[in-house]
Amino acid sequence: MVAVDLNADLGEGFGVWRLGDDDAMLGIVTSANIACGFHAGDPAGLLRVCRAAAARGVRIGAQVGYRDLAGFGRRFIDVSADDLLADVIYQIGALQALAQVAGSAVCYVKPHGALYNTIVNHRDQAAAVAEAVRVVDAGLPVLGLAGSAFFDEALARGLRTVPEAFADRAYRPDGQLVSRRQPGALLHDPAAIAERVLSMVTTGRVTAVDGSTIPISVESVCVHGDSPGALQIASAVRDHLKAGGVDVKAFC
Amino acid sequence: MVAVDLNADLGEGFGVWRLGDDDAMLGIVTSANIACGFHAGDPAGLLRVCRAAAARGVRIGAQVGYRDLAGFGRRFIDVSADDLLADVIYQIGALQALAQVAGSAVCYVKPHGALYNTIVNHRDQAAAVAEAVRVVDAGLPVLGLAGSAFFDEALARGLRTVPEAFADRAYRPDGQLVSRRQPGALLHDPAAIAERVLSMVTTGRVTAVDGSTIPISVESVCVHGDSPGALQIASAVRDHLKAGGVDVKAFC
Amino acid sequence: MVAVDLNADLGEGFGVWRLGDDDAMLGIVTSANIACGFHAGDPAGLLRVCRAAAARGVRIGAQVGYRDLAGFGRRFIDVSADDLLADVIYQIGALQALAQVAGSAVCYVKPHGALYNTIVNHRDQAAAVAEAVRVVDAGLPVLGLAGSAFFDEALARGLRTVPEAFADRAYRPDGQLVSRRQPGALLHDPAAIAERVLSMVTTGRVTAVDGSTIPISVESVCVHGDSPGALQIASAVRDHLKAGGVDVKAFC
Amino acid sequence: MVAVDLNADLGEGFGVWRLGDDDAMLGIVTSANIACGFHAGDPAGLLRVCRAAAARGVRIGAQVGYRDLAGFGRRFIDVSADDLLADVIYQIGALQALAQVAGSAVCYVKPHGALYNTIVNHRDQAAAVAEAVRVVDAGLPVLGLAGSAFFDEALARGLRTVPEAFADRAYRPDGQLVSRRQPGALLHDPAAIAERVLSMVTTGRVTAVDGSTIPISVESVCVHGDSPGALQIASAVRDHLKAGGVDVKAFC
Repeated sequence: MVAVDLNADLGEGFGVWRLGDDDAMLGIVTSANIACGFHAGDPAGLLRVCRAAAARGVRIGAQVGYRDLAGFGRRFIDVSADDLLADVIYQIGALQALAQVAGSAVCYVKPHGALYNTIVNHRDQAAAVAEAVRVVDAGLPVLGLAGSAFFDEALARGLRTVPEAFADRAYRPDGQLVSRRQPGALLHDPAAIAERVLSMVTTGRVTAVDGSTIPISVESVCVHGDSPGALQIASAVRDHLKAGGVDVKAFC
Repeated sequence: MVAVDLNADLGEGFGVWRLGDDDAMLGIVTSANIACGFHAGDPAGLLRVCRAAAARGVRIGAQVGYRDLAGFGRRFIDVSADDLLADVIYQIGALQALAQVAGSAVCYVKPHGALYNTIVNHRDQAAAVAEAVRVVDAGLPVLGLAGSAFFDEALARGLRTVPEAFADRAYRPDGQLVSRRQPGALLHDPAAIAERVLSMVTTGRVTAVDGSTIPISVESVCVHGDSPGALQIASAVRDHLKAGGVDVKAFC
Repeated sequence: MVAVDLNADLGEGFGVWRLGDDDAMLGIVTSANIACGFHAGDPAGLLRVCRAAAARGVRIGAQVGYRDLAGFGRRFIDVSADDLLADVIYQIGALQALAQVAGSAVCYVKPHGALYNTIVNHRDQAAAVAEAVRVVDAGLPVLGLAGSAFFDEALARGLRTVPEAFADRAYRPDGQLVSRRQPGALLHDPAAIAERVLSMVTTGRVTAVDGSTIPISVESVCVHGDSPGALQIASAVRDHLKAGGVDVKAFC
Repeated sequence: MVAVDLNADLGEGFGVWRLGDDDAMLGIVTSANIACGFHAGDPAGLLRVCRAAAARGVRIGAQVGYRDLAGFGRRFIDVSADDLLADVIYQIGALQALAQVAGSAVCYVKPHGALYNTIVNHRDQAAAVAEAVRVVDAGLPVLGLAGSAFFDEALARGLRTVPEAFADRAYRPDGQLVSRRQPGALLHDPAAIAERVLSMVTTGRVTAVDGSTIPISVESVCVHGDSPGALQIASAVRDHLKAGGVDVKAFC
């Protein structure tokens, strides 16, 4: 039986501020990328979401990012490899303690926002993040983009790499994502998206924006929950995968 | 043979800013209270001092504090017990990862500054800090003031409490410290301080400001390193303890 | 004709995070207490709300608070008078520049959250805030609670004090607010609240929780906008004041 | 009589942390680039240095930077033009209030660190900074590098541009600074530096690293004060300029 994981970003509020509907998403996904306090997430809020994830059996991943609350980690920062290494170790450790107290554990690492995008190509920062994971716990898989510099660096360190697909994003013929600034970058119809994800998972192929069919490696599917429409899409993806005979379960 | 630990605050810079002479102190103390990023300490700087401590065989403690870089954790914050619990878990976890990567481990917890002073009497915050230590690792001792609400709460949770004395502070007849705002609160002469510490450690008694002799429980002595004079005092204390036949060694 | 001002807290998001419906509130109130970046408010968000306020003719006040994004300025911080003085000057100045660029100006100052509550009684912090306003611009009125230490300190410095009433809060016989932790502290029925506010404004009296009638001085009424119910109350207050022949207009 | 300004970065501590010897530098320079809280500078510390500058008759400039205390503003951040515009307005306004309270005023703006370097070439960020200065006060000069995108954008908005030279940096034949990562980028001998600065100021020319003589426009000379050697250089530059008949005075 084919199996796939569903992941989403959670715990991305800060203090009084909330973002997305964490409770609703915990009923849909199998893996929660939980913020670690640098781009979002105050400790009390993170502990609450860790407890909620643990209660539902949803796996916890450390969603590490740049130190940038004002920019929500969405702005590239030219941080040195030494600083980034320590920043990522710090974030993973902080979430490990919170997850453990919640009766669970950090079982993977996924970079967030601008850091995610940067280490697709930026060799030094990619190596720093991979090295941080290795030195904290070489048994932690990393979740990210197949073919990225980050995956190269992770593989070179013996880490398990878990490639993800994006439910609502269009792909270029070379397998990269179409930039959000381009028309057609985002898909909107829940039924079409759900069918497309099912096809990706069961066939290992996806139709790119130019109509060509390209191979895609998918062990997890990234969904969003920060709008009513996004929640509807995430639900549709999960239901359609199950209806299509796919086992929706965590990869770790 | 009588033994005692020497502890000091380290890793209390942030980014380009430095405070104290960490390297010199690592040659004197046996336990380093390393900041955890809330009152001081950027991750890269913390990793460096963890590595230096590990290289010298100095034990690492998590020096947890209020989230207040601008105030260096020296201002009371009326944080709720729930928030403080999570803040302390987060800080310990972050330092655990850094210490482990440095080849060492967090082996005790010591609150910093206003948090230290507050939980001498503030029951809710004392309980939150003690509970945070317990849920992270009930085997971690806490370093603090004998007779404090913090120690009560720690003991009630089965934690080991390690009472410390302050090398350069005057004591009241009730065993509390003379407030820094009072004349005579601080001692300055290295030789006199060293002799006084040796006496405290070997006799379990100290002369209070009113001339009375009071009992004092000392498993660790807190020294400072943020001025040339402070370094000289710390050295004098260590040398005099050794000359007096006391084994200066870590408590954990 | 009797006149009164309506004020509300605005600009209290941070980065991606939003709080309340600023646009809706700008259609209701005559004075906007705009955050200054210490408890909430990133500069770009503050500039947007300053521009929106200017476009609608809503007056801008500097809503100054403790430096505490994680606690939203709702936690007392034992900051020294010197530090608080400078913190408040800094915040007012920052908002002055943003307001001026938006084609408006800061025309009053209102403390936020725990700072507001603290300086009802805390003499040193009250004096620091009043002094900050005076040295920046002694022509700026302060909005707050009649009878507070803050108003004493402001009056002693020649500042204009503008007393406000809270639309949805119960009053004690001594004119203070019933603590939020007590039952009956908050009123919920929009029509009843609106009638009560009209009565306060036109008669200068209000019924306290014990049924007694007490005098109340009201130049501005504080309303909230951070929930659908709150918006409805704010609208009802404004409409009912107008229907009752009260001129709803800014005090500055 | 030829005149030139001497400028240096001041107020770059944060809370308990200090950087450089502000008092010593205030005895040497004529213009103080004072931090504004984003890369360094807590309000109380900024108010102190504003007062000290005012007392000595040293002019105050707003040293605006990226929001990055952990990186001291030395790391490029890919902040959007809208956000940067508001960030710079906010910083200038905050320092304006502090400077005014100190009995002085912000009389120019100088970008700091990575922002300074970035806007030599980065058109969008250069325009955002220039626009921020213009909308706050089009009469404020900007201090920076001749030939930079920042100066282009400032001139296009009618701002006065004040070109500065670096006392201790080597120049390329094209007039740009030799990168700090290259050998020979930094000069160290106080007497040689002082003579070189005098020559730049009086002849409008400087010898580049390849031995060629190039024109250089200098209305201000940037000196540093964060090490004993730096202070010595700064003093030597000032003394030698005066001995050479140059009037060392502020440009605003």
